[in-house]
Amino acid sequence: MADDKKLPTRAADFSAWYNEVVLRSELADYSPVRGCMVIRPRGYGIWERMQRQLDTMFKDTGHENAYFPLFIPESFLKKEAQHVEGFAPELAVVTHGGGKKLEEPLVVRPTSETIIYAMYAKWVQSYRDLPILINQWANVVRWEMRTRLFLRTTEFLWQEGHTAHATPEEAEEETRKMLGVYRDFMESYMAMPVVTGMKSDAEKFAGAVRTYAVEAMMQDNKGLQAGTSHNLGQNFSKAFDFTFQTEAGGTEYAWNTSWGVSTRMIGGLVMTHGDDKGIQVPPLLAPIEVVIVPIYKADDERARMLEAAEKVRAELHAWERRAPGKLRVHVDKREGIKPGAKYYEWELRGIPIRMELGPRDIEKNQAVLVRRDTGVKTTVSLETIGEDVADLLHAIQDSMLTAARDRRESNSYRGEITYERFREIIEGPGGFVYAGWCGGAACEAAIKEETKATIRVLPDEEFRSAEPMKNCLKCGANAVFEALWAKAY
Amino acid sequence: MADDKKLPTRAADFSAWYNEVVLRSELADYSPVRGCMVIRPRGYGIWERMQRQLDTMFKDTGHENAYFPLFIPESFLKKEAQHVEGFAPELAVVTHGGGKKLEEPLVVRPTSETIIYAMYAKWVQSYRDLPILINQWANVVRWEMRTRLFLRTTEFLWQEGHTAHATPEEAEEETRKMLGVYRDFMESYMAMPVVTGMKSDAEKFAGAVRTYAVEAMMQDNKGLQAGTSHNLGQNFSKAFDFTFQTEAGGTEYAWNTSWGVSTRMIGGLVMTHGDDKGIQVPPLLAPIEVVIVPIYKADDERARMLEAAEKVRAELHAWERRAPGKLRVHVDKREGIKPGAKYYEWELRGIPIRMELGPRDIEKNQAVLVRRDTGVKTTVSLETIGEDVADLLHAIQDSMLTAARDRRESNSYRGEITYERFREIIEGPGGFVYAGWCGGAACEAAIKEETKATIRVLPDEEFRSAEPMKNCLKCGANAVFEALWAKAY
Repeated sequence: MADDKKLPTRAADFSAWYNEVVLRSELADYSPVRGCMVIRPRGYGIWERMQRQLDTMFKDTGHENAYFPLFIPESFLKKEAQHVEGFAPELAVVTHGGGKKLEEPLVVRPTSETIIYAMYAKWVQSYRDLPILINQWANVVRWEMRTRLFLRTTEFLWQEGHTAHATPEEAEEETRKMLGVYRDFMESYMAMPVVTGMKSDAEKFAGAVRTYAVEAMMQDNKGLQAGTSHNLGQNFSKAFDFTFQTEAGGTEYAWNTSWGVSTRMIGGLVMTHGDDKGIQVPPLLAPIEVVIVPIYKADDERARMLEAAEKVRAELHAWERRAPGKLRVHVDKREGIKPGAKYYEWELRGIPIRMELGPRDIEKNQAVLVRRDTGVKTTVSLETIGEDVADLLHAIQDSMLTAARDRRESNSYRGEITYERFREIIEGPGGFVYAGWCGGAACEAAIKEETKATIRVLPDEEFRSAEPMKNCLKCGANAVFEALWAKAY
Repeated sequence: MADDKKLPTRAADFSAWYNEVVLRSELADYSPVRGCMVIRPRGYGIWERMQRQLDTMFKDTGHENAYFPLFIPESFLKKEAQHVEGFAPELAVVTHGGGKKLEEPLVVRPTSETIIYAMYAKWVQSYRDLPILINQWANVVRWEMRTRLFLRTTEFLWQEGHTAHATPEEAEEETRKMLGVYRDFMESYMAMPVVTGMKSDAEKFAGAVRTYAVEAMMQDNKGLQAGTSHNLGQNFSKAFDFTFQTEAGGTEYAWNTSWGVSTRMIGGLVMTHGDDKGIQVPPLLAPIEVVIVPIYKADDERARMLEAAEKVRAELHAWERRAPGKLRVHVDKREGIKPGAKYYEWELRGIPIRMELGPRDIEKNQAVLVRRDTGVKTTVSLETIGEDVADLLHAIQDSMLTAARDRRESNSYRGEITYERFREIIEGPGGFVYAGWCGGAACEAAIKEETKATIRVLPDEEFRSAEPMKNCLKCGANAVFEALWAKAY
């Protein structure tokens, strides 16, 4: 049920707006368990569509799904030194099972590299058994001090791809390929533009040789790391003695990659597209694309209008859309709620198109379509309703991406910049600042300490500035990299 | 990789056969974590198809998916007395998080009634908010002493439906409806016939008013409980103060149901259809329905035959099958492995149809199809290959169900029976024995103690014997129920 109180506005308090809009649109709710959330059907419906599409993309790139245990022996985690150092502070530990104290405590997986590469070591004998291209859809647990719905929760849902290769080149290719899949998914389906690039050593995954990430800009101009892809080199192979016989007859450690995205993406969706009326779900991920609100004054019109609405719904459902399957249409048949109150609710929930259908519309064989993104109304003939609705959904999907990209670009800063100006931006309106970096950990740490901004990525070529950066933002020495700086979630 | 040693036969050692066939067909593997298994891609592919179909059936009956936390405060479990008594011995307990001892230990969910009805209590105010029809796909943990791959593991994957209703009649209808969905799925998709019925009080779910179950017979004549559906009455509502305002204006506790099936079904599939050559996967659940093995003698034929095989695969893929989607076809292109060795492997893995394609077949524009279930070979024209393959898959699906049903019926015993004869059957060949029961817990317990047989279900009318049972199998008093007795997994 929609709450009667007004939503906080984004301008007044972005953080309060975010929490309220997630709760009121019924995407999720707090749970009695500290730091854990409940994903409600309206939120889970979006997650299911994300999963379905990503899963198709993973399979199209040759991956299969499998499932590995939730529990990991504590000793496994300790085998890769950096890995355990990174994750130890965040672990949930099972010490008792079946009424008895366990001999060795079990860790609830924070990620599954250790258990998975231990299994691969058992399955792979020779180069003929490689590559292994496996993905897992699972829940993971990281004990977080400060949690936010979808963005940072103790338990979250994600997918983790884990692959093994016979050469370092193949592993690097896989790492980059999956980063590309994430980017494609986020732009084409979430209508959320991202910057791709490599993480600095300070920000990379605990146990990786190189981490790549996709970074999106939220409406408060902060960055959101929306997905990562890691080239693990032979770090885990060596820790788990994962070797294979090479074609030449020798023995070699395998090269691994891992990559993941999570329910955090739903938070990204909300903070990319939401407005002061509620959330906005891009058509391709919307469990309901069109809501039909029948309008009637007298009670004796009700039956006739519901019948008319149902007929339109059936026509839309029968309409042969090539992709992505049948039009998803809902008729709001609730009694005792005025059309205006229904409009308010469906706007809050971000349904891309509202169709208003009254007695005069039926007489004229027409309907009124209202876009959630722009509020623009158009009257269309019921003769061509399937095609018109599909076209409009397509247009909404496109313009949501364009709007988000325009917003990001108008809050991005490029070109040589003084550290003072940098601080003005970061501590003022925020945004993405592309600036030179000497590559030194000291400058990176000092900037983080002083401004809370971090290197989000060292952007891939297509995102770099036209002119190469000359000097490090902080120390003024020669710039080795162009870095994308921002405050982030 | 297929192991060179022969599989144990079912007749010699059914249990050893089961373990070996699961491991060698690469459905699953043991993991380094006690009692937990790894579901490998060939096993997970079957689970995905099960999930997809069940999910469609749940949605067609009005249910939505959601996700509730993995962790449950220990105090929640204690609120329903029978529930905690039933599950306490099987709990895994998290005592430490983020490096600190927790104030209240968290239980890893063994099932989610408690956390879910606590949330529903928060969401529901009035009868207008009912029914709630939610399902969750999740992992659960029950600390088991003796584990078996798929059949009984510490962690397993399942779905748990949890619904809330305004009347007890609606709750009962839902409980029965979902039992029907399970039966339909198991018979139509798994080709595994089941007996439906109610559990005795001794065997019902901890916290339920009534438990219904679907029971299947495995090839060793033991029963497998393949799914359950519980009418929870107001037990959990009362424990979690889950009330709603009635239409008449009063306040009432909601009526709840829960129902679940798990990865245990994969074990059921193996033990229903497997033979001494390997597993058999019914076409509707098979990730690969047809494997094409190109046959060639000389190396210079190889390229031509692979091309021909690929052409047939593409034709099959393009063939417009109405349901269930595209034909799923794999070409075995591996080098250095003889056709016979390939046949052996695909039989082990239970692919429903093998297509043998040699140079002479291509000349004659034909292919040889070999059924996994009967071994029967037929030669078909490549002109009509799509239709022929689809028809054959349909026939295989049907005859797998018929074969399983015939086997069950020839190992079922009906009619008045002495306790001596009953023991002969149970302790000898095993099977389903339909016999009278006085309804007394003492007789039930004595029979279990003496023979290890339990009441699997009090069968629904269609499964009951033509003649009503007169006397209790054990005490000879008047029979109140007809009960289905068997040893079970």
